Amino acid sequence: MSKVMIHATVSVDGFMADPDGGMDWMSGFPVAPEDEQIVERICSDIGAIVGGANKTQTIEDGEIPYGGFLKVPVYLMTHREHEVVEHDGTRFSFVVDDIEEAVRRAQHDAGEKWVSLLGGRVARQCLALGLVDELRLHVVPVVLGEGIPLFAGLERQLRLERLATSAFAGEVHLRYRVLRDVPAPGE
Amino acid sequence: MSKVMIHATVSVDGFMADPDGGMDWMSGFPVAPEDEQIVERICSDIGAIVGGANKTQTIEDGEIPYGGFLKVPVYLMTHREHEVVEHDGTRFSFVVDDIEEAVRRAQHDAGEKWVSLLGGRVARQCLALGLVDELRLHVVPVVLGEGIPLFAGLERQLRLERLATSAFAGEVHLRYRVLRDVPAPGE
Repeated sequence: MSKVMIHATVSVDGFMADPDGGMDWMSGFPVAPEDEQIVERICSDIGAIVGGANKTQTIEDGEIPYGGFLKVPVYLMTHREHEVVEHDGTRFSFVVDDIEEAVRRAQHDAGEKWVSLLGGRVARQCLALGLVDELRLHVVPVVLGEGIPLFAGLERQLRLERLATSAFAGEVHLRYRVLRDVPAPGE
Repeated sequence: MSKVMIHATVSVDGFMADPDGGMDWMSGFPVAPEDEQIVERICSDIGAIVGGANKTQTIEDGEIPYGGFLKVPVYLMTHREHEVVEHDGTRFSFVVDDIEEAVRRAQHDAGEKWVSLLGGRVARQCLALGLVDELRLHVVPVVLGEGIPLFAGLERQLRLERLATSAFAGEVHLRYRVLRDVPAPGE
């Protein structure tokens, strides 16, 4: 069955965005061709996407997952019914509150490929439910000090197995398996 | 002149300790001989240490920086005068509130070697004052979700230059230069 990854770009101190949701800090550092190849390789493995509800307002504005260049089904969490949207060759389906249903449908669509979870809330909900197989993180050479954390509010420790680490210019690319059967100390 | 590093072990999400100050999560993952060599190499470059005030109570209990195996002068920040303590071959000096004085004295002692800053508060104060040359981080394969962050409350973004990245077993070792002359976007 399709596996599930959390795919995110973060600061060295683990934030996805600055306190205002800004992401300007994600640019302005050296990038190597190998950095782009790593992202391309991850993206070519993705067969469906599950994203947060806040993106439902912005499809028409072009603010869509992966800038819209990944032509795979997208499931967006929402709080009320919304019709399917076809936009620029991509199908956006809306799932009311039930994250497990969203992941299940995305996994069905993805087939042998991966489901990519975007956004902190979706990521944390899926981690809490034990639905996540791997983390793929791109660590940008910036310390933000404060901001919107990827993992805050997990309410449990998560043990990982490091699968791969690489770095070519400014970024560090981290791949971890989520260990489900190894309880964190104190549990 | 002696350079200054922040040397810390952190979780993937940037915490130094769990919410209760606990560090149990720092063990229980695979370690390779190369991991220990990296720590030994960093430690052999350290000529003096500046640490937080909370350690002043615990010298006699043996809870001392680097477990006491680094026989270099230690400066501990405190809020009231305290005599120098000689303990197990190490000299502990206490500096009342003035972090710049502590770093200056540590740099004098360190000579050609590095000053290591331990603890979040000391690290953040020195970052804010522009006293830090490098970060040396050991990233443990654990997501804590919540805890005591290394960098929280910095009140500014910090641009870094990645100098080295390595990984052999569970940990990822990161070395960054702190860029002082490159303003973060929006500044």
